[in-house]
Amino acid sequence: MNTSTAAAENAAEEAAAAADGVETREPAEGADGIEAGVLAVADAARTASRRLARATRARKDAALEEIARRVLAGQDRILAANAQDLEAGRSNGTSAALLDRLTLTPERIGGLADALKMLAGLPDPVGTVARGQTLPNGLRLRQVHVPLGVVAAIYEARPNVTVDIAGLALKSGNAVILRGGSAAGRTNAVLVEIIRDALEAAGLPADAVQSIDQYGRSGANVLMKARGKVDVLIPRGGRDLIQTVVANAAVPVIETGEGNVHIYLDASAPAEMAVPILLNAKTQRPSVCNTVETLLLHRDAAAAPDVLAALAGAGVRLHVDGRVAALLPDGVESVPASEEDWGREYMDLDLAVAMVDDMDEALEHIRRWSTGHTEAILTNDLAQAERFIAEIDSAAVIVNASTRFTDGGQFGLGAEVGISTQKMHARGPMGLTELTTTKWIVQGDGHVRS
Amino acid sequence: MNTSTAAAENAAEEAAAAADGVETREPAEGADGIEAGVLAVADAARTASRRLARATRARKDAALEEIARRVLAGQDRILAANAQDLEAGRSNGTSAALLDRLTLTPERIGGLADALKMLAGLPDPVGTVARGQTLPNGLRLRQVHVPLGVVAAIYEARPNVTVDIAGLALKSGNAVILRGGSAAGRTNAVLVEIIRDALEAAGLPADAVQSIDQYGRSGANVLMKARGKVDVLIPRGGRDLIQTVVANAAVPVIETGEGNVHIYLDASAPAEMAVPILLNAKTQRPSVCNTVETLLLHRDAAAAPDVLAALAGAGVRLHVDGRVAALLPDGVESVPASEEDWGREYMDLDLAVAMVDDMDEALEHIRRWSTGHTEAILTNDLAQAERFIAEIDSAAVIVNASTRFTDGGQFGLGAEVGISTQKMHARGPMGLTELTTTKWIVQGDGHVRS
Repeated sequence: MNTSTAAAENAAEEAAAAADGVETREPAEGADGIEAGVLAVADAARTASRRLARATRARKDAALEEIARRVLAGQDRILAANAQDLEAGRSNGTSAALLDRLTLTPERIGGLADALKMLAGLPDPVGTVARGQTLPNGLRLRQVHVPLGVVAAIYEARPNVTVDIAGLALKSGNAVILRGGSAAGRTNAVLVEIIRDALEAAGLPADAVQSIDQYGRSGANVLMKARGKVDVLIPRGGRDLIQTVVANAAVPVIETGEGNVHIYLDASAPAEMAVPILLNAKTQRPSVCNTVETLLLHRDAAAAPDVLAALAGAGVRLHVDGRVAALLPDGVESVPASEEDWGREYMDLDLAVAMVDDMDEALEHIRRWSTGHTEAILTNDLAQAERFIAEIDSAAVIVNASTRFTDGGQFGLGAEVGISTQKMHARGPMGLTELTTTKWIVQGDGHVRS
Repeated sequence: MNTSTAAAENAAEEAAAAADGVETREPAEGADGIEAGVLAVADAARTASRRLARATRARKDAALEEIARRVLAGQDRILAANAQDLEAGRSNGTSAALLDRLTLTPERIGGLADALKMLAGLPDPVGTVARGQTLPNGLRLRQVHVPLGVVAAIYEARPNVTVDIAGLALKSGNAVILRGGSAAGRTNAVLVEIIRDALEAAGLPADAVQSIDQYGRSGANVLMKARGKVDVLIPRGGRDLIQTVVANAAVPVIETGEGNVHIYLDASAPAEMAVPILLNAKTQRPSVCNTVETLLLHRDAAAAPDVLAALAGAGVRLHVDGRVAALLPDGVESVPASEEDWGREYMDLDLAVAMVDDMDEALEHIRRWSTGHTEAILTNDLAQAERFIAEIDSAAVIVNASTRFTDGGQFGLGAEVGISTQKMHARGPMGLTELTTTKWIVQGDGHVRS
């Protein structure tokens, strides 16, 4: 392992520890053994990916159904391993929130199986023709979707992600290399074994799904640097995990999820529209990335007092600037906002609230603080709506609806790989097609270029 | 500048020197001044990009026409600056090939103006609706192409690229930051001044096109690391330049151009088809990326002797393995191939030739050595053609036609940004659409998620 990899490793270790909430043991192999091990996994994934790329939809769907069956049949083994992980977590002092994410139950296992069956029912993106024509010289040209090849995922101690990502990769014809949070190590090991057995039973290579959990954090670092061996790396988890992966990876990464989401309440928005949208955007599921984190009030927004009162009434802590504090209705509590509040993704029942003089100031605030996920305007003024749509540079721009709609399921994409906040390759909710690339197929009859 | 940037700089300096073929002076500012200068350029580009993103097609096309007019009108100034660059290059001992690329003539300037006018005639990718529907709940959903924002280009001492990239960026609504080879510094400075004046005359911000040549190689390194400020970086040039940028950049890069292109001559291909295709693919323009570099002969390929005799007769140096040497017709000269030849992109009248026992061996050779640009099969056997199409993992797969067809113009894309050999975002010939991203626009009437 070279020095830059070692430097990256320190950063990644911190993030991994933050993500896991617990310490993990390093494997007994030295650095060279770990590197060789991870690269061998990647090479096996490449070989498996070639068979997977040519697998018919029928075979892939049968494998998904087989995995679903075996996950249900293996419920006792899965729960036993999960109980061990939970016990270790509790004795390490892992927080209740992290333990909850780590926990599998019969209901949650049923949900995983249902999701796999749902995937089996979706169209196959592989082989879809994106564009095609017969050129003037008679050459037949097609641009066809093909799998990326080898997909890797680094994620936190949430065993459901293991099954979820494996299913998405399989349906889109990709081999996958998994690195889950080590606090879920025993659960993930059982799940990966079940998935691999199911793949073999369905006539697909077991190495289409592999874990590198046994190589610890150093293994994750080798994976991040494996240029040419990993076609795309998807970090799934909180901000620290994603930022560490983005900063350290040498392979292509798709950045997902971070959402400092804004709603701009224009002067013309009626309270009867604004109140339900704000309540929905903030309180329906505060812990997810499409929940609103900052409300920008036009100084003449008639709906503002009703909106603030309704949010406070629903238990939302309002972090307000001075001008907002001055217009709070009697009995509505708030705390003063500091500059830090504008940049926070609370993911809780907290909302930063600022007043702006006009659209210019709203756009400037959003440009300064947005993570490029979703921004919404509530307005009855067509010109304001059109300007907001034109000038906001985020994955999703919403007019007069809740920010909670930025979601692959809601957008009709069938399955969601994640919500990309980057501009390259995919932006916004990503479906199965975003796990493919294309190739151009040109067919002639002895054509030469003149 | 931190240590990792400094390390990257050394590597980039080597590549820049290789690319330029001459030494360049560093600017008088210290590292901090250079970093501040480049980041200020990037911020100005971001501001300009906002106006450009909202510019109508009519205004962008008028600006392209204005640039074309002024490039023609400024011919004498351009040629005078170019003469100085050439003089400096000659006294530095720059090679004839590099001097040729650096040279502008009235004809070449006319070609640049024609290319700009052609761009003005192409459809605008911005605002194109990629997908759209009304969701079951009545939400109106559109996925619309929008500019990436700030595009950067690092390229060699070829002043035509300055005009070419500026035009492509302008048409696709992006601001652009240019870093050309320093051997073309005087020519590029005049071209950039002309382009900026034309933008202002056409009512667009001059800062939509900026050069950082004055910041030298250190400036290029700051640019490569400017995460969040540069939306995509396109290296244009030879292998060393591209690989250095890919290895050092922290911003998203589109890898273009490197083409170790293979043709597999199957047993069933008739000589009357194979000979003209090989001659076209190797001799029409040997210095470009879609020219063939390795010919794989099936051991029973009846056309092989005719093909080899025709290539040798056309002046192609054949680098052959032992089995190929044994079947060379009398009088056909060759040199022995070493393993190194399989990996070379000659870009000259050289061709590596290997014999294979069957399709398996051909595919294995290609997997080992291909850069993922273009591979072709010449065959009359449908099953062989289908297998080759299915198993080759390259940007373009061609059956019974010259590899020279992998080209944006030939594919009907109008303008070509480059040929991507990566899988993310764009693969193969890239048109203007590949310089855009998308955003989702969601319009409701008070919709909340249930």
